[in-house]
Amino acid sequence: MISDPARMGAAEGSKPGHLMAAEIAEQPDVLARVLASSQSAVEEVAVRLRAAGPRFVLLAARGTSDHAALYAKYLVETRLGLPVGLVSTSTYTTYGGSPDLRDVLWVAVSQSGSSPDLVESTSVARARGAVTLAVTNAAESELAKTAELHLDLCAGPERSVAATKTYTASLLTLYLLVAAWGEQESSAAQRLPGLAADVLDLPEVDEVAARYRFVDKLVTTSRGFAYPTAREAALKLMETCYLSAHAFSGADLLHGPLAMIDADRPVVAIVPEGAGGQALAPVLKQLTDRGADLCVVSPAAPAKASAVLPLPSGIDEELAPIVQIIPLQQLALQMAVSRGHDPDRPRGLAKVTQTR
Amino acid sequence: MISDPARMGAAEGSKPGHLMAAEIAEQPDVLARVLASSQSAVEEVAVRLRAAGPRFVLLAARGTSDHAALYAKYLVETRLGLPVGLVSTSTYTTYGGSPDLRDVLWVAVSQSGSSPDLVESTSVARARGAVTLAVTNAAESELAKTAELHLDLCAGPERSVAATKTYTASLLTLYLLVAAWGEQESSAAQRLPGLAADVLDLPEVDEVAARYRFVDKLVTTSRGFAYPTAREAALKLMETCYLSAHAFSGADLLHGPLAMIDADRPVVAIVPEGAGGQALAPVLKQLTDRGADLCVVSPAAPAKASAVLPLPSGIDEELAPIVQIIPLQQLALQMAVSRGHDPDRPRGLAKVTQTR
Repeated sequence: MISDPARMGAAEGSKPGHLMAAEIAEQPDVLARVLASSQSAVEEVAVRLRAAGPRFVLLAARGTSDHAALYAKYLVETRLGLPVGLVSTSTYTTYGGSPDLRDVLWVAVSQSGSSPDLVESTSVARARGAVTLAVTNAAESELAKTAELHLDLCAGPERSVAATKTYTASLLTLYLLVAAWGEQESSAAQRLPGLAADVLDLPEVDEVAARYRFVDKLVTTSRGFAYPTAREAALKLMETCYLSAHAFSGADLLHGPLAMIDADRPVVAIVPEGAGGQALAPVLKQLTDRGADLCVVSPAAPAKASAVLPLPSGIDEELAPIVQIIPLQQLALQMAVSRGHDPDRPRGLAKVTQTR
Repeated sequence: MISDPARMGAAEGSKPGHLMAAEIAEQPDVLARVLASSQSAVEEVAVRLRAAGPRFVLLAARGTSDHAALYAKYLVETRLGLPVGLVSTSTYTTYGGSPDLRDVLWVAVSQSGSSPDLVESTSVARARGAVTLAVTNAAESELAKTAELHLDLCAGPERSVAATKTYTASLLTLYLLVAAWGEQESSAAQRLPGLAADVLDLPEVDEVAARYRFVDKLVTTSRGFAYPTAREAALKLMETCYLSAHAFSGADLLHGPLAMIDADRPVVAIVPEGAGGQALAPVLKQLTDRGADLCVVSPAAPAKASAVLPLPSGIDEELAPIVQIIPLQQLALQMAVSRGHDPDRPRGLAKVTQTR
């Protein structure tokens, strides 16, 4: 059974953000559904990939799905030892390029599966020799039909324009795929529905939302596997609260943008346990030395943080992004509502974005 | 002879931004020097690349050099038909990954050639079978020594923390390399020193700088070959003026960030002649429909632009980025100085950034 948040909305008289709130809250169930129902499809794709033996991976996506693609880039490079590129679709669409893609796995990630640029570039990729895989929440979409292989996100209909449950479902599906492809252990993922439920109602989200009520620009940062979380959090804040929310990897932040950080521009840092969090430590020090107002999303907050969104400890760094984003989705929702915006219907956006 | 802008600075009593101003103005000479002196080194590298026959290209860089890498990505994909990925160095440094890089060309671009993450990842890449090339402005640097091949930018010492002439020198060097590798015509590049001189003193830069005197956030956008210009312009504005300057490809802008655009957040759009500019047209229409205040950097300004930085017409779209950035560098310089900042020494930054 797929619950229908749109119906809940009708009962609640379309309270701003009710769809986004319901879809955020649905994530423990969605993750459980992905774990229960995707395994055989993932195994089938993995068998095909092992037989094909691609040597390079290209990931094509836009918006929220692009952050899932970035997550998959780290996974494939570190766990499978294959180099990965993120696709500039304009090479294929605007400029009519058609690179030689033999020995390439092409993965297109899209909630709707209907953006023309992804369909067109995936079609070129298939014609040019790539093994093509579409990861979508729409099994009947044009993109799903264009690619040789398809994985369904099993997330159920997503009605809020701000994507939430399809993001975490994408991350988990890609995680399971990489593990199956590499014949690696993935049982730690079974904990995810419970962990997601644990972070659904952090009281600290209210405190940070209140603290940031009048902020109009902020920076998000992280490193490695959690960097996609920083990017996705920034996108949620831009599209629902209309903030200048700017994401940087900790290293990129030091190569120039650090200059703009001062006490009036809060920094939200996602600091996982593990190597990525450790690599971020010198960046956090530079930020606090400059007087930055720091909100840390982490199981272990540094003394100098002025706000914390606490996460459970003991999560694999590779799985943590599926949990980290949830309080940040709720932060965006609360900040949007408190400013009088409806995150289910951001100004100027439609649920399906058609780009070429 | 390499002119030394630091000496000019002493004479001028270290007027804020005098180094950046001198280095911007030096670009016609630097481009002429690259054209005159790089050809044989570029040819030598091209011979080696044709012999090696890589099937995939990885580009590693940070900050301004990362925008040169993005430019090279479009060039290699469209002119050479090889898929390209931009490197996440943390795969190699933070996580100790070592992907199989046989049949890969690895290009590291860095003004200083001394960031430890680039040196370390390039060393891993070479050990793992990639043909490695360093493109730096420092022939004796650690990075230049780590890679098998090296191309010198011939830009002369760069003293301002805000990189300008090393950026355009990187673009041109990479353009010449791709042309030589593909045995393609590159004579149009001979016009660049003259074109760069033509845009050095656009009076419109003063007008736009005055118009933006009190702006604290803006968006830059473009598509395809000119998208790196949008990114580099945003970085210059962040590091010299401490603005929230946020760059998006026109397509990515529509996938969410469009919601934050309103009349109080100006948009600087780089609109080249050719396919990239055409692909941007529907984005510009959506922006002006939303009441965005639009500054267009283009040979042909749309009627709805409130400001224009006019460029010469008839430049190849692939070469235009080397010209487009110059008035935007000057815009950042003027805006920084008018706010009382010294763009030669942005707060919190050093000329050489060491990241791991």
